Amino acid sequence: MTKAPVLTPRADDFPRWYQELITKAELADNGPVRGTMVIRPYGYGLWERMQQEMDTRIKAVGASNAYFPLFIPQSYLTREAEHVEGFAPELAVVTHGGGKELEEPVVVRPTSETIVNEYFSKWVQSYRDLPLLINQWANVVRWELRPRVFLRTTEFLWQEGHTAHATYEEARDYAAHIHRDVYADFMENVLAMDVVPGRKTARERFAGAVNTLTLEGMMGDGKALQLGTSHELGQNFARAFGTRYSTKDGRQEYVWQTSWGSTTRMVGALVMMHGDDDGLRVPPRLAPVQAVVVAVKGDEAVLAAVRETGERLRATGVRVHVDDRTDVPFGRRAVDWELKGVPVRVEVGPRDLENGAAVLVRRIAGTKEQVAIEALPALLPTALEDDQALLLAQSRRRREDRTAEVTTVEEAVEAAATGWARIPWETLGPRGEERLAEQGVTVRCLVAADGSVPGSDDQPGNVAVVARAY
Amino acid sequence: MTKAPVLTPRADDFPRWYQELITKAELADNGPVRGTMVIRPYGYGLWERMQQEMDTRIKAVGASNAYFPLFIPQSYLTREAEHVEGFAPELAVVTHGGGKELEEPVVVRPTSETIVNEYFSKWVQSYRDLPLLINQWANVVRWELRPRVFLRTTEFLWQEGHTAHATYEEARDYAAHIHRDVYADFMENVLAMDVVPGRKTARERFAGAVNTLTLEGMMGDGKALQLGTSHELGQNFARAFGTRYSTKDGRQEYVWQTSWGSTTRMVGALVMMHGDDDGLRVPPRLAPVQAVVVAVKGDEAVLAAVRETGERLRATGVRVHVDDRTDVPFGRRAVDWELKGVPVRVEVGPRDLENGAAVLVRRIAGTKEQVAIEALPALLPTALEDDQALLLAQSRRRREDRTAEVTTVEEAVEAAATGWARIPWETLGPRGEERLAEQGVTVRCLVAADGSVPGSDDQPGNVAVVARAY
Repeated sequence: MTKAPVLTPRADDFPRWYQELITKAELADNGPVRGTMVIRPYGYGLWERMQQEMDTRIKAVGASNAYFPLFIPQSYLTREAEHVEGFAPELAVVTHGGGKELEEPVVVRPTSETIVNEYFSKWVQSYRDLPLLINQWANVVRWELRPRVFLRTTEFLWQEGHTAHATYEEARDYAAHIHRDVYADFMENVLAMDVVPGRKTARERFAGAVNTLTLEGMMGDGKALQLGTSHELGQNFARAFGTRYSTKDGRQEYVWQTSWGSTTRMVGALVMMHGDDDGLRVPPRLAPVQAVVVAVKGDEAVLAAVRETGERLRATGVRVHVDDRTDVPFGRRAVDWELKGVPVRVEVGPRDLENGAAVLVRRIAGTKEQVAIEALPALLPTALEDDQALLLAQSRRRREDRTAEVTTVEEAVEAAATGWARIPWETLGPRGEERLAEQGVTVRCLVAADGSVPGSDDQPGNVAVVARAY
Repeated sequence: MTKAPVLTPRADDFPRWYQELITKAELADNGPVRGTMVIRPYGYGLWERMQQEMDTRIKAVGASNAYFPLFIPQSYLTREAEHVEGFAPELAVVTHGGGKELEEPVVVRPTSETIVNEYFSKWVQSYRDLPLLINQWANVVRWELRPRVFLRTTEFLWQEGHTAHATYEEARDYAAHIHRDVYADFMENVLAMDVVPGRKTARERFAGAVNTLTLEGMMGDGKALQLGTSHELGQNFARAFGTRYSTKDGRQEYVWQTSWGSTTRMVGALVMMHGDDDGLRVPPRLAPVQAVVVAVKGDEAVLAAVRETGERLRATGVRVHVDDRTDVPFGRRAVDWELKGVPVRVEVGPRDLENGAAVLVRRIAGTKEQVAIEALPALLPTALEDDQALLLAQSRRRREDRTAEVTTVEEAVEAAATGWARIPWETLGPRGEERLAEQGVTVRCLVAADGSVPGSDDQPGNVAVVARAY
C-alpha cells in the first residue's frame, strides 16, 4: 500500500516542505500583520517545554527572572553608537497613545540592553551588588523584510539575559558558562541537536558587543541556522549609561557586562533539523507528548484498554496522551501523529487486543512491531532514551557528511551549495569573508584547531565554518 | 528598643505607604515611558509563582496555551462596536516599521478577542472542533492617564483565556467554571485573599460581553480591587468575525464564547491586602521563599549551622533561602526580610547555637521565640499552613468588619469612605448606580441573597456590593 505524500518531499522543495509541515502539524499560522505569527497549541507546547528546560538551567547558573518594559524611549537607543546603527532599520515605532500624538515616540523593544542598563545604573552601587544576573522571558519586535515563520518573524518570543560583573575575566567566563552549560547543554541533551560552538567574526558580531559566542546547527537542506548567542559587551553599555560601582577600596569603576538570547526560532530549527517527509520528529526529552496511545476502533474493550494503558504508562513517568477520538478515521489520526512527530505511538485494535498485544510504532527509529501490552511500561522509557540518542547521532552524522575541508573561496562557495565548508581563517581572513558574503555565504563561526571556542579571532589554527544561512 | 519606621504608616498615607513598600521591598520601579514598570526579581518571583499555580489550574480545566501576535490591524478592533468603543481611548498605535510609514497603522493589543476570533473562524469548522479552549500568557498595553505601579499600568502582564462552544449553556458554565475553580480557588487557597464572587452590572461589564463575572477584594484602606474577570461573550465576536461551525445535522451555527483574564495587578493586591506597617506579608503557599535561615554573625560555626539547617528544611519540601551575607549588618538584613514579607525567619547566632537553638520569627503570626534547631523540620510545615490560614482569616475579618448593610445611596456613599456597603439591587437599580458613580462609588458586583453568583441582574433578592475602587 503506497501512501499519497502528505507533504511535498524535502528533496523537491525544502522551503515548501517546511511551510506545509508547520501548517499541517498545526504548529503555527502566519499572523495578519506582515511577519507576525500565531503559535498554535501544539507549537506552543514545544516552546513551553523549551522554556521549562532552559529556565531550570538559567536559574542553575544563578540568574533571576525579571521584566523590563516593552516600550523604550527612542533616545535610549542612540546612546550606544554601534547598537543603534545595528537596530535602527528594524524598529517599530509607537507615535500615538491614548488618542494623542506622543511628545517623544517610543520604540517597541528589539532587545533590551539599553533599558536594562538604565536600571542597572541605579541598582548597582557597590561591589556587593555584583554580579547582577538577570534574565527575562519576553516578546521583541524587529521589522522583517523577508519573514519566515519561526525563523525570522517580526515579533518573536525569547529569553534575554543581562549581567554585570566587577571584572573583565568574570564577564568573559560567564558568557562562556551560558554558552556551554545553558545553551549547548540544552540543545544537545534535550533538543538532540548537533550544534557547533564557536566565535563570531567581527563582521557577524552583535551590535554593541566585543565578542559573540554562537551555536550553529545544520538544517536538513545543508544550510546553517544560528541558535542562541552569548555576548561579551565589555564596558560599552556601562559607559553609555553610567553603570559604575565602588570597589572595596573605594574607586569608581564601570561594570563589565554580558547579554545572551535564544528564541522561538528553535521551534523552526527542530522542524528543519529533525523533520522528514512524513513530518516532524520530536526528541523524546523535549516532547510534550512522548507517547500517544491510540484506539484503532471505538469498541468498549479497546477504549478500556487504551485508557488503562495510558494510566500505566503515565505512572512510569512518560508524558502520555490517549487518543480515543474514534469518530475520526484511524488512518487520518495516524497521519496526524506522524506529522506532529510524537516519538512513540501505541496502537490498540480489537484483534491485537485479543492476544494482549498492541502495535508499537517508533517515529524516530522508524520501526513498527507487535508487542505485549504488559511489556510496554518496562520497554518504553528505554525506547525513548534510545530514540533520543539516535536523533542526535543522525544530526551529527549529517553535519559530518556534508562538511567539506577546503582551502579557497571558490571551493567554499561550491561546498555551501549543499552543506558547510571549513577553511583556515589565516587563509580566508576578513577580505575572503567579504568575497564570500558577496555570494551569499557567511562565516558562521570560528573554531579552534582542537574544536574548542577560540579566545580571539586571530588565534593560530582557527578554522572558519562557512555556509549559507537562514 | 523602638525602631524608626521603615515605611510611612498605612494610617498616615496609604498610597504613599504602598509606593514606598513597592520600592523598598524591591518589587518594582517605575519605567521610563509613562505608566510602564520594571518588575524586579523579587516582584517577578511572586508573579512566577502566581503563573505556576494558575497555569496548573487552567490546564486542569482543559485549556491549552498558545500565542497570538502583539500587533493587531486597526481594522479588526472596529468590527465589534461596543468593543472598539471601550478600548479606542486606550490604544497605543504603531505607525512606522522598518524605517517606513505603515500603510495601515497597527495597534498594540489591549486584549486579544479580535485577533483570536480571526483565527477561531479559520480553525473551527465542525462540532468536532468544539469546545476550543485556549489561554495565552502575554503583555498587553492600555494607555493609562493615572497609572499606579502594578494596579494600573500602561503595559501589564496577564493570562487571557478565549474559548468557543457549541451552545449558550456550555459557554455560560465554562465562564462560571473558570471564575470558581481557577480564579476563586487560586485567590483563596494560594493568595489567602478573601474575595467576593459576583456578577457585574451592565454598566461595569467588559466591552463586548453579555455577562461579566468578577472577584472583588477589599484592600487595607477599605477600597475595592477587581481581581480576575470571566466573561460570557454570547455570539457577539462570532458574528463580527464569522466564527461558525456545522452541527451534527449539517446546519451552520455561530459559536458561543467566553474570555477571562487575570493580571500582574494581583501583585499589587497582595501588597494592599496583606501588607502591614513593616512591609509585605507573603502567603506561605505562594512564597518563592517560605523560610529564610539567617546567619546573625559570620563565624564558622554559625555559617555551618545555617547551611546545614537550610538543607534539612529543604528536604522537608520547604522553599528555603540561606542568608549568609554577613558583610551586611544583621539588623539591616532583618528589616529587609520583614519588608519582603518572607513568612518565616530562622535566625542563628553564636549564643543560641551553643544551646542548639535558633530564633524563629513568624511574619504573619507576629511571634518570635527560641526553638531547638532539631525541632524545626517537624515544626515548620505546620507553622506555614497555620499562617496561611491566619492570613485568609484576617482578610475575611476585615471585609466583614468594614462592610455595612445600607438602604440608601447616601448611606452607601458614607460607608464607602472607609469600607464597603451592601444595598438591595431592587432599591438601588441602574439610576441609583448612576448617582453613586457621580460621587466616585461604583457597584463592584451583584451577589444573590444566599451569597452565590446571580444568574441575572434582576434576580429577586440580589444585593449590590458598592465601594470606591482602584
